[in-house]
Amino acid sequence: MLSPRRTSRRSLAWGTPGQGSERPRLGHRGTPATSYDAVSDPPRMAEARAGALHPLTDGAANARLRDYETRVKQAFDQIVPVLKRISGLQHEADFEARAQAIAQAELGFLLPEAVLADAWVAQLDMRRLFAWCVFETCRRVSDEFFTADPLRGRDGSELERFIQECGFHLFDITPCADGRLAHAVSYALRLPYGGVRRKSYAGTLFDVEETVQKWVETELLRYREGRPNLADAPTRYLKAVIYHFSSRDPKHQGCAAHGSDDARAAQAGLNQLLAFQQAVQNGFCCGASVDLLLIGLDTDTDAIRVHVPDRSGRIDLARVLDAGSVYALTKGMTPEAARAQIAELVRSHATGTPEDGMVRLVARLVESNLSQIDYVRAYHGGAYPDPGHAERFIAAGTGFEEIDLRNLTYFAYLSTVEEGTTHLDVGVRIFTGLNVHHGLPVPVVVRFDYHGGIPGARERAVIHCERVTRALTARYPELVKAGLLHTMSMVRDCDQPTARLEVIGSSLASAEAGGH
Amino acid sequence: MLSPRRTSRRSLAWGTPGQGSERPRLGHRGTPATSYDAVSDPPRMAEARAGALHPLTDGAANARLRDYETRVKQAFDQIVPVLKRISGLQHEADFEARAQAIAQAELGFLLPEAVLADAWVAQLDMRRLFAWCVFETCRRVSDEFFTADPLRGRDGSELERFIQECGFHLFDITPCADGRLAHAVSYALRLPYGGVRRKSYAGTLFDVEETVQKWVETELLRYREGRPNLADAPTRYLKAVIYHFSSRDPKHQGCAAHGSDDARAAQAGLNQLLAFQQAVQNGFCCGASVDLLLIGLDTDTDAIRVHVPDRSGRIDLARVLDAGSVYALTKGMTPEAARAQIAELVRSHATGTPEDGMVRLVARLVESNLSQIDYVRAYHGGAYPDPGHAERFIAAGTGFEEIDLRNLTYFAYLSTVEEGTTHLDVGVRIFTGLNVHHGLPVPVVVRFDYHGGIPGARERAVIHCERVTRALTARYPELVKAGLLHTMSMVRDCDQPTARLEVIGSSLASAEAGGH
Repeated sequence: MLSPRRTSRRSLAWGTPGQGSERPRLGHRGTPATSYDAVSDPPRMAEARAGALHPLTDGAANARLRDYETRVKQAFDQIVPVLKRISGLQHEADFEARAQAIAQAELGFLLPEAVLADAWVAQLDMRRLFAWCVFETCRRVSDEFFTADPLRGRDGSELERFIQECGFHLFDITPCADGRLAHAVSYALRLPYGGVRRKSYAGTLFDVEETVQKWVETELLRYREGRPNLADAPTRYLKAVIYHFSSRDPKHQGCAAHGSDDARAAQAGLNQLLAFQQAVQNGFCCGASVDLLLIGLDTDTDAIRVHVPDRSGRIDLARVLDAGSVYALTKGMTPEAARAQIAELVRSHATGTPEDGMVRLVARLVESNLSQIDYVRAYHGGAYPDPGHAERFIAAGTGFEEIDLRNLTYFAYLSTVEEGTTHLDVGVRIFTGLNVHHGLPVPVVVRFDYHGGIPGARERAVIHCERVTRALTARYPELVKAGLLHTMSMVRDCDQPTARLEVIGSSLASAEAGGH
Repeated sequence: MLSPRRTSRRSLAWGTPGQGSERPRLGHRGTPATSYDAVSDPPRMAEARAGALHPLTDGAANARLRDYETRVKQAFDQIVPVLKRISGLQHEADFEARAQAIAQAELGFLLPEAVLADAWVAQLDMRRLFAWCVFETCRRVSDEFFTADPLRGRDGSELERFIQECGFHLFDITPCADGRLAHAVSYALRLPYGGVRRKSYAGTLFDVEETVQKWVETELLRYREGRPNLADAPTRYLKAVIYHFSSRDPKHQGCAAHGSDDARAAQAGLNQLLAFQQAVQNGFCCGASVDLLLIGLDTDTDAIRVHVPDRSGRIDLARVLDAGSVYALTKGMTPEAARAQIAELVRSHATGTPEDGMVRLVARLVESNLSQIDYVRAYHGGAYPDPGHAERFIAAGTGFEEIDLRNLTYFAYLSTVEEGTTHLDVGVRIFTGLNVHHGLPVPVVVRFDYHGGIPGARERAVIHCERVTRALTARYPELVKAGLLHTMSMVRDCDQPTARLEVIGSSLASAEAGGH
């Protein structure tokens, strides 16, 4: 069995740690340790340094994904340097015009005129400007995602066909809500977001009752509408969780919800999967059940490890197939040989005899993950330079399917502040370190999606969004009073794949020139 | 068309207003206006005074329901007189034994010994004792409901068969959450609670998304398990709302959520029904739809009025069949003639040509309601002596299907205090008048039900219950500090029809002798 062995894998799959970040940029976060190499490392140089790619790596996809990651993170990370430049000009003649020219050129949008116009009286309100720029960037990034499909993931039909061939009619994935897994679907597993259901939860502790409801809805569509296939097709609902761990600093950079203890994180994910399966089996007769899949992700290298279930669905926590080891074993092979080897490894690492369909699916995930291992090797020196938190904003509410980038966002999935207090408090604590200690506010995007086909759903989402925003503001009165926590509230019609976001309010409202 | 005409209906169906309450009991609420005639009016005398019953009235059922109402309300209403007696003894020798003897004899249970034992030091803590007795009574009433089925409503199979014959496979009813409609199912409509789905909401504004989920679940059970009938049976999901109005004081005692405006209350109920229908039609193809029924209830007389839909489902707000008028028209007939007349009236009052099944169902509801009209005539002089609020405790959370008595409970159906703040604030304001102004605390029962078949569901319900209790306590700090708001938290396995309640905590915990 290929169990993860740190030393050998590091020498096989990693470059020298930190290799990709020898030119750290000093952002507002101040220390090189948490800054990004997002634009400092031209792809070709990086690839050359990391050596040849794995024969199954999709280099074109890597370049495309890298371009997107770079553009988006750069859009956020240049806010501070640009505002610094503008700040330096605030007492000069023609300040407003010069500031707007810089903002338009560097950030791609104009700043709110009211804030600039008041600069001559006192000082430019940099906190408001910073929050305004972060929110505007969020909005633009989200709109681009839904209208231009930069990850080419909207169309999930190929994947839907594939998983049906493998014996499944829905692939429902719960990664941990940690920002370091936000890219799990589009990057680490290279799955089109339109072809899977993603519901992130802290510690992978997904809502069993909500998932049973989704199962019910899925089955009814099969019975009534033959979507995605007929109810008598021998396929099942596949529920997967992705827990995480850190190969470089396992005791500190693992899953916070489970005390950075890999074994506990894996066990908790498995327990939740089994609870869901049991709930379906107990609640419905006639052999109702679901299939389960447990996956681990190394947040340093993005290598996955899969607990391949046997034919009866049994999952063994101690028995994993590690994609990092697969990478090393198959790198020298032809694509065909590597592919055959992967299938063989999946089969031999199963808890017992596996289903052919499950082998096929896991083999695809492992093969896709090889590209991501090369991505991290090529662009990040084999291991990310930001092992810990370095998020740009807090996302509170539901939706956020456009957030598919690592460490961009701290997720606090919640329906109410009352239920999500713990997650929010953790997020605000993280941003106290990242932003408040540097005098910058915590930017919180509050968001609720709605089904446009249901009458009144938009209005209810707006009310919900406003209520949560109020409760959130009431939770952190000192920060709000000091201008160190700002909110933007948005809703979106999730029945429309290309619908833009609708901003319904912002704590910056008075600073606006008509925007949010 | 029989539209409600106050003068004539009153002379036909009511006794002299207030007739049933000529011997008001002075409870802790102090004023006769809000006190009850619960035990002051022996059934036979009352019937004699009200004249003969309607030929279709079920006198035996009335006597049984009256017995239950009397027993339960008496159990709550004797708490204050008993505590007054005990209070008078607190400085006498042998106090504890005498107090316990009185409590056991009058209330049926012992008081917490710790509170009694401390009386010699200072004063008996009457607030704690009062709350303790209210909670203990709640618990005993609920347990009796689930274990002894005093309303004989647990078995819904006859009704389920009947509604299927009428063309429906589920009868889902949303009365307004106002305490004056809490008895709508078991008393006003005489339906077995086990045969319908009841979900009360303030102003009948039920949760459309949640109801769509219930529709989905119902359809899936038909497809997968043939429950309650096969999916190809030509039956539909029937969603009804029951709004309310006051014939005696329409401008003040109507639905508070709609400004005591009957027309607005009816329109709001209809809008919500149509939104639900539209949501099903838009969300699912292949002719998916639901049937709708709009009912009004006069909270003074319990007479219903039904907006009978036509064949296409169209509902006319201005076109109603009033059961009070039906009562008057048919009282002199034989049962057979009255029954035929009711069917004819239902048909002739429909918006257009109605479905035969709908006519049959509405005729049953109207006929059942005649018994309730006689109930109010016989035991309450034709109109309730408590036109406004006179609840005994606040129920916050979900479940509470055992609460089937008028004006026993102020419902604040909620999942979180954050979402339910408005309803809770109204409830606390009402109880400030009913209790706090007399020095007595607001008793709040926090309750969440769970599906025992789902692993971990009980533990999640307990956590949920504790979180809501904390949030509720934090919402009213002054009342809590003064000992003027007490809570008891409970969970219940709603998969088990006879399961008792499980008390998981109480603000009175330190006063306990082992109970809640």
